Amino acid sequence: MEKNIVWQLGKITKAQRVNALKQKAQCIWLTGLSGSGKSTLAQALEMKLHTAGQHVYILDGDNIRHGLSSDLGFSSADRVENIRRIAEVSRLMVDAGLIVIVAFISPFRADRALARQLFESDEFVEVFVDSPLTICERRDTKGLYLKARNGTISEFTGISSPYESPENPEVHLDSANLPVEDCIEKIWCKMQKLDEFFQFD
Amino acid sequence: MEKNIVWQLGKITKAQRVNALKQKAQCIWLTGLSGSGKSTLAQALEMKLHTAGQHVYILDGDNIRHGLSSDLGFSSADRVENIRRIAEVSRLMVDAGLIVIVAFISPFRADRALARQLFESDEFVEVFVDSPLTICERRDTKGLYLKARNGTISEFTGISSPYESPENPEVHLDSANLPVEDCIEKIWCKMQKLDEFFQFD
Repeated sequence: MEKNIVWQLGKITKAQRVNALKQKAQCIWLTGLSGSGKSTLAQALEMKLHTAGQHVYILDGDNIRHGLSSDLGFSSADRVENIRRIAEVSRLMVDAGLIVIVAFISPFRADRALARQLFESDEFVEVFVDSPLTICERRDTKGLYLKARNGTISEFTGISSPYESPENPEVHLDSANLPVEDCIEKIWCKMQKLDEFFQFD
Repeated sequence: MEKNIVWQLGKITKAQRVNALKQKAQCIWLTGLSGSGKSTLAQALEMKLHTAGQHVYILDGDNIRHGLSSDLGFSSADRVENIRRIAEVSRLMVDAGLIVIVAFISPFRADRALARQLFESDEFVEVFVDSPLTICERRDTKGLYLKARNGTISEFTGISSPYESPENPEVHLDSANLPVEDCIEKIWCKMQKLDEFFQFD
């Protein structure tokens, strides 16, 4: 095999992958309280992008907590490690040319800052899905707030663990009042804007 | 937002993503000693697939050990965890519709078996890149065998840690004698065969 140095051509580049997929690879990072609407928005955005012919993938509790992070619990240290792994996987997927939608509470500023620094500035869209705690708790779709209040779950964001609001998110959504269509439109517009100076070869 | 139940459409399915990318999503898992030719084959296969219009991504030491597994060392436990994470990321990428090429020594049968069980039977192609230790050591492109022999590196596969050969790999390559072109052709044929009963909608 040593003779075949013609094969030592190196790897295909990110630019080549992105060109082949004809899209701007990006990480759309949805952060907000449990029940704020992250999953609904992630699915609606995925639908819109897929329908528009783009190649997109959602990273959320369903496919991360049972797999890559199945060895982690919900202590502070484990939650930090969970977000770190999600950020690293997002980076790999963006490097592969995909649009990745991350839907995790990701309550700590420092963790989101670490995620952001893995990407180019035009690749990372932090979306603050901002719904008041009272509304999220009243909705309580997964029954988690009830468990947090009666102590069955500890370190629950908003109840027994802090949520640190983004200071300068690319998109800030009043998700308790803004219809899903309008939320998606705001994210879409921001994505297009970042895509503005991006040219396919 | 609660009123907009029309948006609760669920996620896009793997089948929809695969159809959009017009390819069979697969994990091509290259296993073999250090210096056996995994990286060369990974790059040559990537080139062939990319040129054929397919969407492919390599997972190897370059993009895993400095990122997702940067917290891991080279102890047995850490190597097991490293392979587990790579397998989980591969599963996510295949779920996203991509063809993933994994190029890691992955010396233990149990770890590769765990990786395999994350996939459908037609999605996982184990490729044994089989080159004799003497040839790998003589080549010693990274100077690692020298360090392993003089004790600078411990638990080095083939020297101070075992390599467990695959018993039933989908592809078995005599990489010390077979030209790269022929190696790639054998993998390609196997991929096509698994793709045989696969129909796009």
